[in-house]
Amino acid sequence: MEKKPSKTIEVRQSVTLANDRAAGELRDRFAAKGVWVLNLISSPGAGKTALIEKTVENLRDEFSILVIEGDPHTSLDSDRINRMGARALQINTLGGCHLDAAMIGHALLNIDLEKVAAVFIENVGNLLCPAAWDLGQDATCVLAGLTEGPDKPLKYPETFSLADVLVINKTDLAPYLPGASAMLLPNALKINPGLTVFETSCIDGSGLLSWYDWVKDMMEKKQGGRARA
Amino acid sequence: MEKKPSKTIEVRQSVTLANDRAAGELRDRFAAKGVWVLNLISSPGAGKTALIEKTVENLRDEFSILVIEGDPHTSLDSDRINRMGARALQINTLGGCHLDAAMIGHALLNIDLEKVAAVFIENVGNLLCPAAWDLGQDATCVLAGLTEGPDKPLKYPETFSLADVLVINKTDLAPYLPGASAMLLPNALKINPGLTVFETSCIDGSGLLSWYDWVKDMMEKKQGGRARA
Repeated sequence: MEKKPSKTIEVRQSVTLANDRAAGELRDRFAAKGVWVLNLISSPGAGKTALIEKTVENLRDEFSILVIEGDPHTSLDSDRINRMGARALQINTLGGCHLDAAMIGHALLNIDLEKVAAVFIENVGNLLCPAAWDLGQDATCVLAGLTEGPDKPLKYPETFSLADVLVINKTDLAPYLPGASAMLLPNALKINPGLTVFETSCIDGSGLLSWYDWVKDMMEKKQGGRARA
Repeated sequence: MEKKPSKTIEVRQSVTLANDRAAGELRDRFAAKGVWVLNLISSPGAGKTALIEKTVENLRDEFSILVIEGDPHTSLDSDRINRMGARALQINTLGGCHLDAAMIGHALLNIDLEKVAAVFIENVGNLLCPAAWDLGQDATCVLAGLTEGPDKPLKYPETFSLADVLVINKTDLAPYLPGASAMLLPNALKINPGLTVFETSCIDGSGLLSWYDWVKDMMEKKQGGRARA
């Protein structure tokens, strides 16, 4: 439906191709150091920062996790992560609606990845635009708050279909939501049957142990890949 | 932070200027017919459709309200509005992250505005991108679900600063949310002290009567403007 001059589309395609090249270079750099990289995408306020806080708190004694926080404005999220004892780098897009590979490369300029087990990238809160921009990640995680309603996977299939992992968060609120909320998971699996699924609450902690185990497993496999390389 | 070729920026500016012209034409057309137009912007799942459903249900006997539903995919929302006894036009952006004036003009091509009191435009669920695109509206309403956390006005000031009205929705869940949720309103007023504010729940109905009264008042004033013109 969106009508724009064809010139815009050509420029956009070349920008996306340039991003793909930059993301490929990042991916090679992460692979060489055995660093596992997760790109977290969701609507604003689905709980990405809360999930990263909990994960860092639980795993920080065993693994060095670096967090990159993407927001249009403020350093509120990186401040939260720093308080949990992990290093966080803030990217402010100044109104931009997604992160791109050049921003990630710039944020990592002076970072020694040798000592890093994983990079968690919290994308800008936006269920649509970040999907098209590869950041060199190993896995893409879409978070969906149970409070957002069950129809989001059907309306935003671009993001749900490219994700590897779905975290359904805020399950502590399930008793107070309309019954239809339970359709979120079936709707997501209709769009992407291959999703690895976690149902979590960062308030009461339910489901988080399985999530930590999965993250640990991913980090160990990536580090093992480097050892064998 | 976002680095892109200057060519892209130039093309984008000319596209936005073209949108402003198209929005101006829409605004003239709405004014000539005394049609009041509201542009609703929020994160996915904040409750835009639920608020429109309730408004249509309450006011449909007195006012003819036309609804334009913007979504990347599906006709789920226009189906909901049609079931409430109002006419809804669905725009699918096919992955596009906002509505623009040309889309609105196209949707209204065969609509006789003579019989319409108001057009409610539900934008694509996205707290950032729709802000830059004028649709010829009289008022912009930002919805914020209380479940999204209190920091969204600070992170997304573009949208909160241009809005005329703030609806804080899902207040029925307040007893089950962290106390910090109450900071949503002060944070919004810090960004935009001129906001007209409603605190609503489409589940238990609280706050909706004041909202209906405001909508009625706006529609009547716009119709009166036509009568005097």
